[in-house]
Amino acid sequence: MFEAAGAGDRVALARLLSLVERGGDGAREVARLAHPWAGGAYAVGLTGAPGSGKSTLTSGLIGCVRAVDQRVAVVAIDPSSPFTGGAILGDRVRMQAHATDPGVFIRSMASRGNLGGLALAVPEAVRLLAAVGLPWVLVETVGVGQVEVEVAGQADTTVVVVNPGWGDAVQAAKAGLLEVADVFVINKADRRGAEETARDLVQMLDLSELGHEAWRPPILSTVATDGTGVVELWDAVLAHRAYAESSGQLAERRSFRLREELREIVALRLGWRAREICSGERWDQLTDEVVARSTDPWTAADEMLAPVDA
Amino acid sequence: MFEAAGAGDRVALARLLSLVERGGDGAREVARLAHPWAGGAYAVGLTGAPGSGKSTLTSGLIGCVRAVDQRVAVVAIDPSSPFTGGAILGDRVRMQAHATDPGVFIRSMASRGNLGGLALAVPEAVRLLAAVGLPWVLVETVGVGQVEVEVAGQADTTVVVVNPGWGDAVQAAKAGLLEVADVFVINKADRRGAEETARDLVQMLDLSELGHEAWRPPILSTVATDGTGVVELWDAVLAHRAYAESSGQLAERRSFRLREELREIVALRLGWRAREICSGERWDQLTDEVVARSTDPWTAADEMLAPVDA
Repeated sequence: MFEAAGAGDRVALARLLSLVERGGDGAREVARLAHPWAGGAYAVGLTGAPGSGKSTLTSGLIGCVRAVDQRVAVVAIDPSSPFTGGAILGDRVRMQAHATDPGVFIRSMASRGNLGGLALAVPEAVRLLAAVGLPWVLVETVGVGQVEVEVAGQADTTVVVVNPGWGDAVQAAKAGLLEVADVFVINKADRRGAEETARDLVQMLDLSELGHEAWRPPILSTVATDGTGVVELWDAVLAHRAYAESSGQLAERRSFRLREELREIVALRLGWRAREICSGERWDQLTDEVVARSTDPWTAADEMLAPVDA
Repeated sequence: MFEAAGAGDRVALARLLSLVERGGDGAREVARLAHPWAGGAYAVGLTGAPGSGKSTLTSGLIGCVRAVDQRVAVVAIDPSSPFTGGAILGDRVRMQAHATDPGVFIRSMASRGNLGGLALAVPEAVRLLAAVGLPWVLVETVGVGQVEVEVAGQADTTVVVVNPGWGDAVQAAKAGLLEVADVFVINKADRRGAEETARDLVQMLDLSELGHEAWRPPILSTVATDGTGVVELWDAVLAHRAYAESSGQLAERRSFRLREELREIVALRLGWRAREICSGERWDQLTDEVVARSTDPWTAADEMLAPVDA
């Protein structure tokens, strides 16, 4: 199946991605196969609030990649993304154009139900797509929520999408998106408040460390629905890539992410062990005591974990 | 400190909540103290997309509780909530009225940085607030993101807030909010599309198991900014509470949640153990091999976990 996917078999690739999404032994086997070959693809993340226009921008960026005849995969993990099926008609039609293009592979991933969750599933999916020879992977994720913001920060270049209007930039900052941004884009920039939003972003960059590093995230403006500014956005992504590759930032980030991932896998495997521990007669007794409030959860956990802690 | 908080000392209570938020040994000690006394409070969750008006509704519900002279706590974990500091001026003013009321205790919790995360911090905070004698706890959480939706489902009564407009109900369903709803409220119901959104919700209920259980979630309409429908919303919450208490649903849910929580604590503690395991010379060697792509992360994890698995 892995060989078939490498040779361009889309059905085989889709099946492998399902294994990754489900997690467990299948995902593990896919990871084992893909890992040695996974250095080639470049991952671009797009993140922002629901309704900020990430999917339309993603669609525009697909066009930029296809214009130079390179293949591209999209992994969408935003529940409001049209890629995952929640589109209004216009968006869907725009997607459709790419969906029939053999150089474009689109995959939505559910944000739940995966053993180990998104934080592990997304990098594994990206590695698989890299290993079968796709040079670009666009990852669209909603930038709200603990796990989702973490996933947004796992791309090689992360684009943070905000909209004009009071406080949107501030909300992005509060959600933790400021720290993961390599490029800012103000989408729907034809609406009122775009200049104020740009000014907010400049101010926040000035106040943060991010604004004083060798790469200062540029702030672009787009109207994704009519394509305004999309080519310039892609140029900014390419500029960040060039910087990341030449400065060593890319190698450093990837190495850091792999180490973090290994930590997460160890934690996940221990979680499986926990599930084994959390069963049996003594477990049932202890949970009854916790429910009856005669024992607190931490003390109960102490007792169950005694064999592992020893 | 625990005794002082029980006697009404707000500074002591705030400090205890900071311990809970930080996690670790302090949180554990607070949990141990609070657990035996934590059965008394009733937790009402409000969840929905950013900007759906959860905070203004919460503010209205505080008014309903105060009208019958009961005390109430608010735990806000939505980064866009005015309770957590991201308000536009009007919202802030509305909050201010309650902030100076000694019968109202408002607390925001960060959505990151807690050892073990929100999924553990929120129920522990609720238990602490219960143990010091607050009869009502309103939990406001953004209903987007894996962990956040999980937290939204932990209340005794969960109110899901949607807005009029194409697809808002559908997006709530896709985010997993349908399954956790005890009460639906269409806020900003004076806007166009409120009827269609109500129809969407009815349809989705008809199609889901939820619509055919003994408690079918009612669908209410509010305009939180001028108070329209807020009393009716609170009545619906009280009706669900009465149902949950008389049917045994409340006892069942709380027991289930405590069991799940104990599982999470076991997993968390194993995670701490993982951090111990993930250090030392062999760990450094293995991570270098993973970065160099000569070993895959799962195989490396196997080796590190050999002592625990045995």
